[in-house]
Amino acid sequence: MKTWLLTAAIAASFAAQADEGMWQPHQLPAMADMLKQKGLEIDAKSISKLTEFPMNAVISLGGCTASFVSPKGLVVTNHHCAYGSIQYNSTAEKNLLKEGFLAKTYQDELPATPGSRVYVTEAVTDVTAQIKQDQMAKTGHDFYKGIEQQEKALVAECEKEDGYRCQVYSFHGGLEYYLVKQLEIRDVRLTYNPAGSVGKYGGDIDNWMWPRHTGDFSFYRAYVGKDGKPADFHEDNIPYEPKSFLKVSAKGVSDGDFVMVAGYPGRTNRYRTANEVANQFENAYPEGKMLRERMIEIIKQTAKEGSDERIKYESLIAGLANYAKNFTSMIEFYGKSTMLNDRKKVESDLANWINADKQRQAQYGETIAALDALVAKSQQHQARDILLGYIGYTTMVTTASDLYRLANEKTLPDMQREPGYQDRDMTRFKSSMERIDRRYAPSVDKALLLDMLSRYAQLPKDQRLPALDKAFAIGNKFDAKKLSKTLDKMYAKTQLGDQATRLAWMEKSVADFKKSNDPFIQFAVNTYDESMKLEQEKKQLAGDLMKVRPQFMDAIIAFNHEQGKPVYADANSSLRVTFGNVKGYSPQDGLVAVPFTRLEGILAKDTGVDPFDAPAKQLELIKQKQYGDYYVKAIDSVPVNFLSTLDTTGGNSGSPTLNGRAELVGLLFDGVYESIIGDWGYDDNSNRSIQVDSRYMLWVMEHLDHADNLLAEMEIVK
Amino acid sequence: MKTWLLTAAIAASFAAQADEGMWQPHQLPAMADMLKQKGLEIDAKSISKLTEFPMNAVISLGGCTASFVSPKGLVVTNHHCAYGSIQYNSTAEKNLLKEGFLAKTYQDELPATPGSRVYVTEAVTDVTAQIKQDQMAKTGHDFYKGIEQQEKALVAECEKEDGYRCQVYSFHGGLEYYLVKQLEIRDVRLTYNPAGSVGKYGGDIDNWMWPRHTGDFSFYRAYVGKDGKPADFHEDNIPYEPKSFLKVSAKGVSDGDFVMVAGYPGRTNRYRTANEVANQFENAYPEGKMLRERMIEIIKQTAKEGSDERIKYESLIAGLANYAKNFTSMIEFYGKSTMLNDRKKVESDLANWINADKQRQAQYGETIAALDALVAKSQQHQARDILLGYIGYTTMVTTASDLYRLANEKTLPDMQREPGYQDRDMTRFKSSMERIDRRYAPSVDKALLLDMLSRYAQLPKDQRLPALDKAFAIGNKFDAKKLSKTLDKMYAKTQLGDQATRLAWMEKSVADFKKSNDPFIQFAVNTYDESMKLEQEKKQLAGDLMKVRPQFMDAIIAFNHEQGKPVYADANSSLRVTFGNVKGYSPQDGLVAVPFTRLEGILAKDTGVDPFDAPAKQLELIKQKQYGDYYVKAIDSVPVNFLSTLDTTGGNSGSPTLNGRAELVGLLFDGVYESIIGDWGYDDNSNRSIQVDSRYMLWVMEHLDHADNLLAEMEIVK
Repeated sequence: MKTWLLTAAIAASFAAQADEGMWQPHQLPAMADMLKQKGLEIDAKSISKLTEFPMNAVISLGGCTASFVSPKGLVVTNHHCAYGSIQYNSTAEKNLLKEGFLAKTYQDELPATPGSRVYVTEAVTDVTAQIKQDQMAKTGHDFYKGIEQQEKALVAECEKEDGYRCQVYSFHGGLEYYLVKQLEIRDVRLTYNPAGSVGKYGGDIDNWMWPRHTGDFSFYRAYVGKDGKPADFHEDNIPYEPKSFLKVSAKGVSDGDFVMVAGYPGRTNRYRTANEVANQFENAYPEGKMLRERMIEIIKQTAKEGSDERIKYESLIAGLANYAKNFTSMIEFYGKSTMLNDRKKVESDLANWINADKQRQAQYGETIAALDALVAKSQQHQARDILLGYIGYTTMVTTASDLYRLANEKTLPDMQREPGYQDRDMTRFKSSMERIDRRYAPSVDKALLLDMLSRYAQLPKDQRLPALDKAFAIGNKFDAKKLSKTLDKMYAKTQLGDQATRLAWMEKSVADFKKSNDPFIQFAVNTYDESMKLEQEKKQLAGDLMKVRPQFMDAIIAFNHEQGKPVYADANSSLRVTFGNVKGYSPQDGLVAVPFTRLEGILAKDTGVDPFDAPAKQLELIKQKQYGDYYVKAIDSVPVNFLSTLDTTGGNSGSPTLNGRAELVGLLFDGVYESIIGDWGYDDNSNRSIQVDSRYMLWVMEHLDHADNLLAEMEIVK
Repeated sequence: MKTWLLTAAIAASFAAQADEGMWQPHQLPAMADMLKQKGLEIDAKSISKLTEFPMNAVISLGGCTASFVSPKGLVVTNHHCAYGSIQYNSTAEKNLLKEGFLAKTYQDELPATPGSRVYVTEAVTDVTAQIKQDQMAKTGHDFYKGIEQQEKALVAECEKEDGYRCQVYSFHGGLEYYLVKQLEIRDVRLTYNPAGSVGKYGGDIDNWMWPRHTGDFSFYRAYVGKDGKPADFHEDNIPYEPKSFLKVSAKGVSDGDFVMVAGYPGRTNRYRTANEVANQFENAYPEGKMLRERMIEIIKQTAKEGSDERIKYESLIAGLANYAKNFTSMIEFYGKSTMLNDRKKVESDLANWINADKQRQAQYGETIAALDALVAKSQQHQARDILLGYIGYTTMVTTASDLYRLANEKTLPDMQREPGYQDRDMTRFKSSMERIDRRYAPSVDKALLLDMLSRYAQLPKDQRLPALDKAFAIGNKFDAKKLSKTLDKMYAKTQLGDQATRLAWMEKSVADFKKSNDPFIQFAVNTYDESMKLEQEKKQLAGDLMKVRPQFMDAIIAFNHEQGKPVYADANSSLRVTFGNVKGYSPQDGLVAVPFTRLEGILAKDTGVDPFDAPAKQLELIKQKQYGDYYVKAIDSVPVNFLSTLDTTGGNSGSPTLNGRAELVGLLFDGVYESIIGDWGYDDNSNRSIQVDSRYMLWVMEHLDHADNLLAEMEIVK
């Protein structure tokens, strides 16, 4: 199939396809002419080489993207990507979230939140053949485990080299597999973040919105051992010297300019079936939105603003709110869109195309029906599954279950263990156990669990899980007060709130767990078999989907190929490149969003009340028109944020937005409200990414925060 | 002073002053060159002549503006200006507000709401000298009554000619007086209004907002007696034949085009003192906003949606909501603006200018202090006065008081009576008594009165009125339940809800009132003396202000003259002309409001739920791109509403927006949210008027409502 992806015919059609597409680096050389025409000045081939500039300067933080911007391992990413680390170093007395932080020397830098990593992708290898070898005769759970086993073997082999982290990524739902090898830097330190009233200006109100005035940037530094190799945090460690780093542009971009983004987009769903679309927008998103909003409400009710408890949950609140708004937009724009009918049309066109040819019929004749059947099966227990997913946000239930799972997995040889419980995962596992100290308050955890269980108790009995029912004494008549008292006792008695206790449990045996009288450990032991049975059923289904969806994608790719349409894989957190232009859009008939916002917009929005409470000094600088070197005549000010047509999604946060010479001209940090639904389908008219302008970053650093040491360290293109 | 207003120096400065200014027609010839340069194609002099085209086609409805658009007295105005008449002809069974209405023949036309008038301004005469003759030595109440007496005499003389209505308007707070003579056409009929879901599309949500998609237009027809003279409604009456009428443009305007509006702007406050500004925005508007929102809440709670009671109050709700939103915007933008400091600066500059010259010192040296003292005095009982004003919105208290006042005034010779109670006012008075049937429900009236009195009862005792206290048994301890019961009894017993009874009271004597046992008549009798005393005090203050404010304005005009700034009088409901361009604006940093909205915007906004529930047929026409002759390539659709820089305010509603040839290209119906505060100061960047595009009017008439008879009757420029 792969040859299709790179034919000249497809490349030629890109121009007509505007800026849609999250391309794998190896796809770029075939698109070189088109990219040059669009405005790429460096060689497209160079972008396809992961170990050369600029790609080796683009790094993953796991969930966010970042880039090296100095020869001494200085890393720039979004403020919201460094949020956990800023929070980790904040207390009620010294609140870095509020006040900002600047290390004037290496010694002043602070350790990032435990488990923080910088991943430098060094190789991406097509391993489809190895992965599928000897597996294709299997089905369901066996197929799932078989593929997993092959992946583990490749990963283990790859990780033999010290300091590397490897992972196999599936593309097109399992049509292709690539092994990704990343240098894993594990000593990461917080270097600089502006005050929250700059870095999170506009907060949840402006989140996903335009016009935007958020200074969403922060700096880390990557450290390695004296030998230059990844090492655990140690005061003797030295700054990592990357093979290359990005220059930062003080000239920035103008309306219409070519831009590109390299990053790690998380997940898109551009090739889902009509049934999947309908279910997601009509059931799953509304349910998820409701649960998220409810959780935020409970946290806010339980942990008063400004309290230590509340500080512990700010990060969770931000995450919940972020996607509650995301889901709200999804539901709103789905209602206005013709997406479902469009999908149905595409599917019926696909079916007609398959049926029009005997060979196609033989190859794909049963694919759509088979996929639909599996999708329907996966939705059978959806209400319950969504609830269980949100119960996963509570800490005690999850911690106890994870620890007991670990004890069970440890009875197996390392290679047979569930991913996440292998030796290679233990540092991360331990970090997650440590992190709980800063993110857990029993009162909040209990309130959240009580609410979720109360909802669970309303499910029809055949959807409920006997062992879970039993663990919380949930019968046909639900008694919330009784459950509340039960939970109070459990939280009072459990020792899992204590870090040393949690870490100690990491070393204990299944028998130790069974003897424990810790109520949450008991819960984990008593629900383990049921939980494993559920997992087995899910893997059975997942395995079947992993066989059918690639057929479906294969048909779609062939079908699209015939129409000259570009083919790129759905985002899967692997490294991608996307190309576009600085460009506004019309959010509504009669209104145009222009591509740049200005410093004066901060003044106009400012109310003095969070989240519109810019630092007094910043307001004063703006009033005095202290633009410094970053004044742009076209807008008669310093640009703050800008819009582009770049095709991005969550995970791209923190990505460097580059000009044609691969200089950093902005940091991608969001998409506009109208483009959230773009995860399910890119629209030229409304898909817009939002970036912090490099000129605003530099202006804040120079004029507001006096980060002269960092400005001197970076290479700034004037 | 007047010569200053028209000097070439001032005219020359207009260009720099952009589009600010509500000009009296007689000011225009001096501005001819500038207007020609801006795009006026007809002779500026012709606009200054009220009895020639186009000004004699522009008419007043009293509170709204309208224009003749056919030789047979066809009148076009806003849907919201004809709202009362549409409501008057609506019942729960046949709801013209909802369904729309089209008279296919003269016979099908419906009488407008009682008291509806068409006023054609025929002469505006400077009567300053006559008015002030022998008055300038008087002060306070005497001065007030003296001026009033002079006005009455001029009006009486003017109205000797049958069919005319005359009024003296004060300009610059009493610096100048003009006598306005208007033909008063009193048989007005409803000819055509689109469905509410077109004419009021967007409702209160979109009110004052952009982007806008409101088809805010409706048609009346003016009728006269067979002799061509104004006459009361009679089936033998014939359509009025105006001396001229406006052609309607099917070509419309483009971005940047010259436009002008002739109309009757109600009130602006562009020359108020800093103290008046501070008090209005910091006290009066917040209080008014709160009371309006509360009244709407009470009406909605008391009269269920869809009920006959609710239909009676829709018009009041609309009016209350309109200005609640207006005040909200005022307060919001005042908070963001530097208006107060700017005024203080202007005032201190003015004071410095006065003090810099001995002659000025002699003339204006005490003016500012004297004005400030009077303003402070007028604010002493402001909280009470505002409450009494809103009690005026209730029907029974007001009706009884008005009727008893009439009986008292009738004991005086006609010329000595209070304006509003003279013989010339009796038709209007009677109409207002008749109209109550369609706008009054005892349950709502009582609920509103109870709420206002409950607030009144909270005032400190020295602010309260003893007779009013006594009438409702309001003491130091307020008992809401008791008052509620008292009111229940009053509403149960009063006969004023009956039209015949009300009309009968118009003929009764003071003695008859004193003998009555109708509880609201008793209320009126018992509070009359107190009410007269309050009025006397107010007139005392008003008289003093009428002497000092002209001095202040005189100083301002002289001071502005020196700076080459244009001088036009604050709006006062008299005929004005304003000039500008079709132009968008930036409502917010990062956003641009483009000057035209499109049919497709209706589709995008439509939710199927009021107020976004366009007729199904309209949505279908748009989906099918049935643009007819009104397609505009630049926007690839039919324009719906457009923005202009025209300087307008309430009262301008329904004004014809004209191109350089004085063809009707739109109907002005609103201003944008950011420009509401423009009543206190015009801002080039944010003052924008909103018009219905003539092409949308014609499109709705032709394609949706098939108003072929009206389209044939009008002269349409293609």
